[in-house]
Amino acid sequence: MEPNGHTFLEKVLTIVREEQDESRPLIEFKHPKQLEEILDLDVTEGVDDKKLEACVRQVLQHSVKTDRVTFRNQLYGGTDPYGLSGAWLAEAFNTSQYTFEVAPAFTLIELKMIQHILQLFGIPEGDGIFSPGGSMSMFYGIVAARHRAFPEVKAKGMRGLPELVLFTSEDSHYSIKKAAHWLGFGTESIKVVKTNQCGQLIVPELDIAIQREKDAGRCPLFVNATAGTTVLGAIDDLVAVSDVCKKHNVWMHVDACWGGSLILSQKYRNKLNGIERADSISWNPHKMAGAPLQCSVFVVRERGLLHSSNAAAAQYLFHQDKFYDVSYDTGDKSVQCGRKIDAFKLWMMWKARGDSGLSSLCDHTMDIARFCLHTVENKPGFRLVCDNLQCPNVCFWYIPKFMRGRKEDEKWWEVMHKITPKIKELLTLSSRLMVAYSPVRQYKNFFRLAFTFHPIVQEKDVLAMLQAIEECGEQVTLDML
Amino acid sequence: MEPNGHTFLEKVLTIVREEQDESRPLIEFKHPKQLEEILDLDVTEGVDDKKLEACVRQVLQHSVKTDRVTFRNQLYGGTDPYGLSGAWLAEAFNTSQYTFEVAPAFTLIELKMIQHILQLFGIPEGDGIFSPGGSMSMFYGIVAARHRAFPEVKAKGMRGLPELVLFTSEDSHYSIKKAAHWLGFGTESIKVVKTNQCGQLIVPELDIAIQREKDAGRCPLFVNATAGTTVLGAIDDLVAVSDVCKKHNVWMHVDACWGGSLILSQKYRNKLNGIERADSISWNPHKMAGAPLQCSVFVVRERGLLHSSNAAAAQYLFHQDKFYDVSYDTGDKSVQCGRKIDAFKLWMMWKARGDSGLSSLCDHTMDIARFCLHTVENKPGFRLVCDNLQCPNVCFWYIPKFMRGRKEDEKWWEVMHKITPKIKELLTLSSRLMVAYSPVRQYKNFFRLAFTFHPIVQEKDVLAMLQAIEECGEQVTLDML
Repeated sequence: MEPNGHTFLEKVLTIVREEQDESRPLIEFKHPKQLEEILDLDVTEGVDDKKLEACVRQVLQHSVKTDRVTFRNQLYGGTDPYGLSGAWLAEAFNTSQYTFEVAPAFTLIELKMIQHILQLFGIPEGDGIFSPGGSMSMFYGIVAARHRAFPEVKAKGMRGLPELVLFTSEDSHYSIKKAAHWLGFGTESIKVVKTNQCGQLIVPELDIAIQREKDAGRCPLFVNATAGTTVLGAIDDLVAVSDVCKKHNVWMHVDACWGGSLILSQKYRNKLNGIERADSISWNPHKMAGAPLQCSVFVVRERGLLHSSNAAAAQYLFHQDKFYDVSYDTGDKSVQCGRKIDAFKLWMMWKARGDSGLSSLCDHTMDIARFCLHTVENKPGFRLVCDNLQCPNVCFWYIPKFMRGRKEDEKWWEVMHKITPKIKELLTLSSRLMVAYSPVRQYKNFFRLAFTFHPIVQEKDVLAMLQAIEECGEQVTLDML
Repeated sequence: MEPNGHTFLEKVLTIVREEQDESRPLIEFKHPKQLEEILDLDVTEGVDDKKLEACVRQVLQHSVKTDRVTFRNQLYGGTDPYGLSGAWLAEAFNTSQYTFEVAPAFTLIELKMIQHILQLFGIPEGDGIFSPGGSMSMFYGIVAARHRAFPEVKAKGMRGLPELVLFTSEDSHYSIKKAAHWLGFGTESIKVVKTNQCGQLIVPELDIAIQREKDAGRCPLFVNATAGTTVLGAIDDLVAVSDVCKKHNVWMHVDACWGGSLILSQKYRNKLNGIERADSISWNPHKMAGAPLQCSVFVVRERGLLHSSNAAAAQYLFHQDKFYDVSYDTGDKSVQCGRKIDAFKLWMMWKARGDSGLSSLCDHTMDIARFCLHTVENKPGFRLVCDNLQCPNVCFWYIPKFMRGRKEDEKWWEVMHKITPKIKELLTLSSRLMVAYSPVRQYKNFFRLAFTFHPIVQEKDVLAMLQAIEECGEQVTLDML
């Protein structure tokens, strides 16, 4: 008899519980070639359920347990279990979000979530859509800006348009580069504006840069402000950026993919002051807030623009001769055709916790980041990159004892640049901690500990992470580098 | 105490089983405003688990049961339960696919699946990536073609390039329009080539169209052939298209999002002959093959092109100073940053069933479509749009008795154009069948019954669907239209 898989589905929860059990290591690192040897991935011949389970467990055993407090490698981590419940239900109800008829309740949920999010961001009259990730949300922003300024672009393309210019800070996310390429601007159309030491865009420099482009006969189109840069977590001065954008009549987008979750906190949302002036905003609840991947929202101030800039009016899908109000067929606002019902999992989290529950989770996340910052600040051998806590990112170097008290010249920093990755390697191989590192501008490789709503991190966990870094740091010798 | 959601997760399988129980209707249609009244969607205040469960069940009750044989509204339907198991595991292990370190096993799985798929499509030396849907896969194809022809586009944009032209058939999917807009070509750069009655691109017309554009000084860049059009399921003559593309040195893309699943069948894969000559192919296993949404593959013949055309080399993510072979950090081939591990669910389905299991499912799907076609052909009141079964799409009108035997002039067809949506409305409101309808070219609104691997449809199910159409068709009167 053919396997039917229904009984397998019943085992999934057990497999998850066992493979994510705390006794399992965060990571059992194997090099790619080694892992290829271990895993049985070939699919040519079918296998029975028992064998399948063994293969799957092997895959999961060699997968990173992103739900651990010691997983600090990216700007996402564990999921909100209500969000995960929503994700499982969404998968089981396998539904594409384009027309009301096929997704009636899910369509209303997406509309409700967008409305609620628009309220929070202070642009209640706007519109929005869920997209497959922050990069795509950035694309939506640029497309909307371009279409508002030059609606003929839809038919005529970029060839007839003036030379358009996009502005962003040097610490901003690289997705604007991919957007400039894909959307036909070219990466040279991006003007990179300097930031201050903590990663915030220097607004007077933006003003000068826009004026310079205007004077050169080019057309400033789009300013990408960042609320939570990827590495340092910097939040640009959104009020000041808005003033410059208004002065020059340029579209203001806020990439709040990371920092947007602060809007959930009554205590910390003032860090995003000025976001209510944006023309468009992108926010990834799958990052800090713990919605399962992918959950990204794009919102735009001008109602109708999302539709006018993206609609293609496919006859077979968006018929106008249906028997219900087709204004609820929201899919033509999207650049996608089939689209996952990502709003549903966010709705489940929010419905369970309410505004105040999410606010508390956000406050705790910031509190634990502040505890980490203060501990790092006062701990021998640790040095902060920036002592200003904007988002829950804490960035620092660990300086091993043999490096301390020496002249910190270029050569010294070159060694530090190699020490950080080496410590990370030791942390990973010992499965004690997965932590991000990066250089930024003049700063040589340093660590970034970023905190998220889930799993809930305690002060003792932070101390253990720092201790792990210190202990691995003290294992490093010059010969290793 | 704060709700933690872990106990809720344990209930999900029960909720799914109960809400998808066969006793529940396919759809309980409510108009948007009615449904807004019924559902409790507000998220301002949190609710306890019991209340949450009630709200969730209400949402699911008013959601379409896409796992039913009577759900024939789209080109997807029920999921492969092994695929669904994979999707649930993927959600629980919440992992983003960009670097090997964070997704070691999942990275190897994506590579393995792409390799296996490339073999099947006959371009074993190629490369590929999973993308968030067929539209995005189309974008990848155009971007790759443009970058190969004009690598300077990445930096310089579209302004300096010659006038580029994209070719597609009049029955092809609308995503090429969205691509032409977003990517900066403009929709006027698309030249639409006529099809024959069954929806296949007329290849000599393509040849003429390309030559015409050349003669006019424009630059033909990209031909989009279709293997499985959305409505009629037509498969273009890929060998002939390839000859024309080679003659003119134009990129050949095959949009096999729907029909690509025929490659799984030993018996039917010859319908895709010529696909091995394509420069790029898009295929959505989430359509016919029943992978949970989203599961879309883009493959390209020229190895390295996906990386060179998309890479942005973000320092914080794609460091070159890591301790392992960073050629396994495959994420910079993607236009996304964070990306779901969609390959994993496909791998689970394939691992369980093997090549031969998927082949059998495909054969059964085609067999049942052929049974449907022959039944429709011979059933009074039913009329086929096209009697050539290419993909498992069967397209037809139902002509109620009061319309039969009358002169089929323009006015008659205008009435038929209204009858089809009316029958669909009655089918939906009675929850007997959700079926697609559409006009195509000169053909007025007709039904499309398309078949997928899951759930497995039996001949008796087909007969019941046709009977439902007939019975609802006979309820239609002229007053209703």
